Amino acid sequence: MSVTAARGFEAAGVACGIKDDGRADLALVATADRRPVPAAGVFTVNLATAPPVVVTRAHLHATGGQAAAVVLNSANANAATGDPGRADAEETCALVADRLGCRGEEVLVCSTGLIGIPLPMAAIRAGVPAVTGALSAGGAADAARAILTTDTTAKEVAVSGAGFTVGGMAKGAAMLAPHMATMLAVLTTDAAASPAELDAALHAGVADSFNALSIDGCCSTNDTVLLLASGLAGPVGHAELTAAVVEACADLAGQMAADAEGATKVVRVVVTGAASPDDASRVARRIADSQLCKCSWYGADPYWGRVVSEAGSAGAAFDPERVSVAYGGVTVCAGGVAAPHDAAALTEVMARRNLEIAVDLGLGQGAGSILTNDLTHGYVDENMRTS
Amino acid sequence: MSVTAARGFEAAGVACGIKDDGRADLALVATADRRPVPAAGVFTVNLATAPPVVVTRAHLHATGGQAAAVVLNSANANAATGDPGRADAEETCALVADRLGCRGEEVLVCSTGLIGIPLPMAAIRAGVPAVTGALSAGGAADAARAILTTDTTAKEVAVSGAGFTVGGMAKGAAMLAPHMATMLAVLTTDAAASPAELDAALHAGVADSFNALSIDGCCSTNDTVLLLASGLAGPVGHAELTAAVVEACADLAGQMAADAEGATKVVRVVVTGAASPDDASRVARRIADSQLCKCSWYGADPYWGRVVSEAGSAGAAFDPERVSVAYGGVTVCAGGVAAPHDAAALTEVMARRNLEIAVDLGLGQGAGSILTNDLTHGYVDENMRTS
Repeated sequence: MSVTAARGFEAAGVACGIKDDGRADLALVATADRRPVPAAGVFTVNLATAPPVVVTRAHLHATGGQAAAVVLNSANANAATGDPGRADAEETCALVADRLGCRGEEVLVCSTGLIGIPLPMAAIRAGVPAVTGALSAGGAADAARAILTTDTTAKEVAVSGAGFTVGGMAKGAAMLAPHMATMLAVLTTDAAASPAELDAALHAGVADSFNALSIDGCCSTNDTVLLLASGLAGPVGHAELTAAVVEACADLAGQMAADAEGATKVVRVVVTGAASPDDASRVARRIADSQLCKCSWYGADPYWGRVVSEAGSAGAAFDPERVSVAYGGVTVCAGGVAAPHDAAALTEVMARRNLEIAVDLGLGQGAGSILTNDLTHGYVDENMRTS
Repeated sequence: MSVTAARGFEAAGVACGIKDDGRADLALVATADRRPVPAAGVFTVNLATAPPVVVTRAHLHATGGQAAAVVLNSANANAATGDPGRADAEETCALVADRLGCRGEEVLVCSTGLIGIPLPMAAIRAGVPAVTGALSAGGAADAARAILTTDTTAKEVAVSGAGFTVGGMAKGAAMLAPHMATMLAVLTTDAAASPAELDAALHAGVADSFNALSIDGCCSTNDTVLLLASGLAGPVGHAELTAAVVEACADLAGQMAADAEGATKVVRVVVTGAASPDDASRVARRIADSQLCKCSWYGADPYWGRVVSEAGSAGAAFDPERVSVAYGGVTVCAGGVAAPHDAAALTEVMARRNLEIAVDLGLGQGAGSILTNDLTHGYVDENMRTS
């Protein structure tokens, strides 16, 4: 069900020929009655913004936050494609709008895949009638599959609130699947909410999930998270809606981390005792993005010296004599120096697929965490060539 | 000759047993007459500063920039070792001073290797008489070998100025050799210069060499570059001295990049047309530190989309429609979109061991460059386990 779990939405996914192996590559999510509903979006902060992001932002702005559909293609990012790329993104929206009977600016568009290659519009033009014709309440799984690139599994979620539902689908994580870059997510709810309320709930959801997920520290040209609200479940408290959106986003982010390219471990870096929450996040991200730390996790090597070194160079307040480090609850460094510990317990912890690394800076109350992965031979294999 | 190429210096390198395979691991550079001379240092900005860095800084401060010797050990960083680590670093200096007949604070100390393990002082105590006894003007090569960790070749340089010489030796590059972390370099000159003049020349040299070299974006606990001046060649113009120090540092940095762990390519990222020099450096470093770009260079894949994506997320002013990218002079992106190019020429360029990537942002006069490497299976192999 996922992106159609909330009442009032339909979805579909078809193969239109962008992928050369016949896998599905064009997805559509639309309101069941084809009328626009309140919508909000969060987008990449990369200044090399892809045309579909530019167009989707402009459409949300023009409509004051209303959308009837989201069309998504995989295998081509329509990024670094200039004015022709913007025209292609607009034409894609217009083609969908024409079929659905809404206005072009009520359609949002997302693309994911290789950068710098013109979108194959012949494939898109052939695919739009097929994907609009296939729309149904049962089409969520097809849609979720059609947005995948190097992902190995579809990522879907449905969260039940008190009388309402938040559902969604996603692909990749930031530059998790960089062959065909981009993290995309579409969420729907049947709660009644204004665009501003959706925007607030979505920003809260993204902050603790997608923005606390770092696969390789890169930031894509196409990252987009959208939330549409049909209103069929009636008004919902803001806190309840936000909680459900946060839960849905966190679930999808966890699925992304579990499916990261070439990864053998899902690692949560938890930083406490920082001088501020910002400092905690900065240290967690520095450790999560460190090639050296990532390689050591791959090797199940509890070499905490690298963790301390990264913490000390993160640009946050740091006192080398106050830092402690624990792997899966086994403290290996305390007061800045090696701590006696149970070697067998540490070996067992390091062998796990899910590893938690706790760093306490001993300075204050700031806390933060990042979900990430190890750096593996598989990652290098996947990313050394795009074709 | 290298670190003894300038008149007035001797050096030695011996095996004292820190490395378990019998390779040399203790080096010494000293003035020929064992008297202190003007000296300056540049150190890591990592706040997890290792005790030898703390001690060397304190000694230079106490003496007002005078040193008679530098003692260096490899295979143990004496980092994250707390008060005992500082006592060990001080004892090492005192042992050397006792043998040379100078004061302990006239001896500087550097360590490179694994973090978090107490320095094996029994080995150091046994090694100091051996290394002081071996000092000679012909000992430079032995000293250069004794500071290596995972480096495959010794790194030495001698630059001839007008009537004076700058020589030096180095190991590793930042976290280039992270098994046993740390970049160290000791430079000597026979030019006569005050500590302040040496400090200015050294900062200029480091800025355009070691600080423009990024292997994996990490910043070690022990990085140290020292410069001692015997004065035997008499006074030298500041510009001439600076030029020679810059040349020596750049040469050593190039040797480090050429010997980076697991690397198959040396890559220079040159950014022009930035809104400011700071912006140019930021963009160059972002590209150089990108796991995705590094993997693509390993695969000889000219996928410029990643370069543009990193440029757009570097925190610098950026206009996606003005950026151009060239690999080895072959322009692949112009005005933010794919540029027609000679595919055969591009393939030939991408296959080279030395690759230059030129990014022009089309915004202003800011320029900057970074020397770096590719990310390879060999890097993962070297760094997934410390033992």
